[in-house]
Amino acid sequence: MTRYQHLASLLAQRIEQGLYQNGERLPSVRALSLEHGVSISTVQQAYHLLEARQLISPRPRSGYFVASRKATPPVPELTRPAQRPVEITQWESVRELFNDGPENSAFNFGSGMPDVGQSTVKPLWKAMGRLCQRQDARVLTYDCMYGMPELREQVARLALDSGCLLTVDDIVITTGCQEALFTAVRAVCQPGDIVAVESPTFPGTMQILRGLGIKAIEIPTCAVTGISLDALELALEQWPVKAVLLVPTCNNPLGFTMPDKYKKELVILAQRFDLAIIEDDAYGELTYDYPRPRTIKSFDEDGRVLLCSSFSKSLAPGLRVGWIAPGRYLDRVVHTKYTGTGYTVSHTQLAVAEFIRQGHYQPHLRRMRMQYKCNLDVFTCWVRHYFPCGICVSRPQGGFLVWIELPESFDSLRLNCEVRKSGIQIAAGSLFSASGKYRNCLRLNYALPFTDEMGEGLRILGETVSRMMNVS
Amino acid sequence: MTRYQHLASLLAQRIEQGLYQNGERLPSVRALSLEHGVSISTVQQAYHLLEARQLISPRPRSGYFVASRKATPPVPELTRPAQRPVEITQWESVRELFNDGPENSAFNFGSGMPDVGQSTVKPLWKAMGRLCQRQDARVLTYDCMYGMPELREQVARLALDSGCLLTVDDIVITTGCQEALFTAVRAVCQPGDIVAVESPTFPGTMQILRGLGIKAIEIPTCAVTGISLDALELALEQWPVKAVLLVPTCNNPLGFTMPDKYKKELVILAQRFDLAIIEDDAYGELTYDYPRPRTIKSFDEDGRVLLCSSFSKSLAPGLRVGWIAPGRYLDRVVHTKYTGTGYTVSHTQLAVAEFIRQGHYQPHLRRMRMQYKCNLDVFTCWVRHYFPCGICVSRPQGGFLVWIELPESFDSLRLNCEVRKSGIQIAAGSLFSASGKYRNCLRLNYALPFTDEMGEGLRILGETVSRMMNVS
Repeated sequence: MTRYQHLASLLAQRIEQGLYQNGERLPSVRALSLEHGVSISTVQQAYHLLEARQLISPRPRSGYFVASRKATPPVPELTRPAQRPVEITQWESVRELFNDGPENSAFNFGSGMPDVGQSTVKPLWKAMGRLCQRQDARVLTYDCMYGMPELREQVARLALDSGCLLTVDDIVITTGCQEALFTAVRAVCQPGDIVAVESPTFPGTMQILRGLGIKAIEIPTCAVTGISLDALELALEQWPVKAVLLVPTCNNPLGFTMPDKYKKELVILAQRFDLAIIEDDAYGELTYDYPRPRTIKSFDEDGRVLLCSSFSKSLAPGLRVGWIAPGRYLDRVVHTKYTGTGYTVSHTQLAVAEFIRQGHYQPHLRRMRMQYKCNLDVFTCWVRHYFPCGICVSRPQGGFLVWIELPESFDSLRLNCEVRKSGIQIAAGSLFSASGKYRNCLRLNYALPFTDEMGEGLRILGETVSRMMNVS
Repeated sequence: MTRYQHLASLLAQRIEQGLYQNGERLPSVRALSLEHGVSISTVQQAYHLLEARQLISPRPRSGYFVASRKATPPVPELTRPAQRPVEITQWESVRELFNDGPENSAFNFGSGMPDVGQSTVKPLWKAMGRLCQRQDARVLTYDCMYGMPELREQVARLALDSGCLLTVDDIVITTGCQEALFTAVRAVCQPGDIVAVESPTFPGTMQILRGLGIKAIEIPTCAVTGISLDALELALEQWPVKAVLLVPTCNNPLGFTMPDKYKKELVILAQRFDLAIIEDDAYGELTYDYPRPRTIKSFDEDGRVLLCSSFSKSLAPGLRVGWIAPGRYLDRVVHTKYTGTGYTVSHTQLAVAEFIRQGHYQPHLRRMRMQYKCNLDVFTCWVRHYFPCGICVSRPQGGFLVWIELPESFDSLRLNCEVRKSGIQIAAGSLFSASGKYRNCLRLNYALPFTDEMGEGLRILGETVSRMMNVS
């Protein structure tokens, strides 16, 4: 981010937080230049950027004023999914969304891609390059079943930050978090079983259940504190649920982080009903607040939590490096891993281990957390500006995904068709439900640093939403 | 391989083939030097090597003579597995064998590792390095569900050599052949189903069936022509078999290649019983004879053959690049692939595609085929020399794995324990059976160019076998 972009983002935040109110006059160019120790032209560039984004407007001879804006949209209410176990559908829509390569849309607001272009990633490229240069034989040969010991060591060290005491022998490296989740479900469930999930839930997880012939019971979920423990308890009393699978930290797609108190209560509930907990922590390292929240695993007393994570969101998905700490289910997980893919690719494992060992991972995380938080501020402004009234917007605590709820009758699948001509893609809410609920919602990705083109994309998106809302 | 090693291997072949018979005088040093256009000292070095390997012996002032040897051991007879579907056991032994990293044994005769150290692999290192150097964004981002288009294009082109007409849309890239086989089995079977397999069968396949709750019916298999079609037909008449899974070309572990005629007949049989065929062609490119044999897939008329392969044996397993051409089961395979691992690692996919596109793959294959064939000749000599009489040895038509059958009462699991102290590992035959049969057999790997240390390893192995046979 250049200096003026940084300043613009800071000012956007202040506007968003109400420090500069509707219609209020902003500080003069000279005052800001003094306050931030930047040149006059930097401030001017920042103001031009904010003007282009329609956050502020100039008045001749009076300076810049906060543009008049709509009220902050509310957070979505507690979700109300079906109250019984259901079979998962939606495969065709998922395939359609995820089979497109990134090159096929100019603005892929629908993907789960992090920003992999920041300079803090450079040491990873170097680590990968060095392994090729010295023709490290380990790159080409079979790894051991559990994954490279040097990587497991680093993962164990990192897990301390989330309150987990793990040894290298507690960890199995996987092909991304997807394989971690897949092996976890296979380790604790049989076909025909029932798994409780948050509602909405990440489509990759839903499709795992579908593929294994497992039913999902979707539990009402609060966009601020996560899965409703009361509703979960009710479901557990009614149905023979085998496991609960959730994303309790920087949830995908709702963005909440479950408070520690609830995480602890969930473990007690799981003990009472003898339930396994599959915890997806793929976004956990990207919480905006530091230090990062604890995992449910850190409250686990008897090995019933299978903690799944990866470097896909915090570093880069193309590496396909994930991991699982499966507690008491270790042997079953190793069997599933071995039969599913044999081994995990060696090169990226070694490179990631080296990247962490050399101390590059924490600075990278700091950078990405800051970027995503800034992006969120700007993104929220834009959504408020371009989208019509009567919508709800989630308040992500980390990561780079926001959930927007439109009026009941809205059809986000149709929206996707409409905007695709303009090279825009969104993730329709219905993908996040077993039975195609949340068709009136969408998930948007705000990982990349903002550009005016992107603002233009959001404008088209917002205007299409408005048009569709007026028609329906 | 240096010049004198090459010459030694050639002479060893001639001895093996009976061109120089037991006790016969070998050509003089001068004659050989002239015949092969090499220096006197090269011939002398070659003779010293053969002497060290006890294939020839010098007689003062008379030159070198073929050492007196045992008769060529016969090929193992048709196997006789259980005649009913059985559940798969042996996981503990498999885990023990495959969880060891390669560094844990000096002579890992037990692994399925190819030789990845030859100079023909260098362009692959370069391709990988270039992708890092130019920080190709595709390395870090998500691939499309089917795999990188440029790699699928090359795979389709290669498949022509085995008689298959495939387009890029017929192919799904997988995490090694293991994921290809796993998705294939999941695409055509449900838990409780029965799958027919060759007997013996690769443990990775067996464990897939175990993990999915599928029973195996092991079909008697000939070490020269493959699965007995008569026995298979009998089984199909008796049991509701869903699929037949086999390695018809350069079989692992028996080394045979099924004649085209039988491959064709198998397809007709499968049509008659409406059976899917899962064809594992992982070693197919390593047939010693050129051009390579056709795949069963090439005889497929109605999309019932799922062809699985990878670059793990022909190039390097650490890349984790495999593929599947699933015929009519494409959509189910894509679903399974997506839910199992999401995407395949991008970096190695791109590097392999580049390696093939630049024309490096065929020269590499030629080199490896020649090396493995030479190795086999020397290896067979050594086995005959160091192993006791009364054994059977397979006649691999390609690849780098040989199957040795010892007398009925022999315990190869105990052998593995005995030789492990000397840093030697073998693959016990019982891993290749659903129910632990073939305990009197072992599979040995002869991928690496021979060294005297390796000969020493084989000597220890052979002597331990002799000792155990005398005791039992």
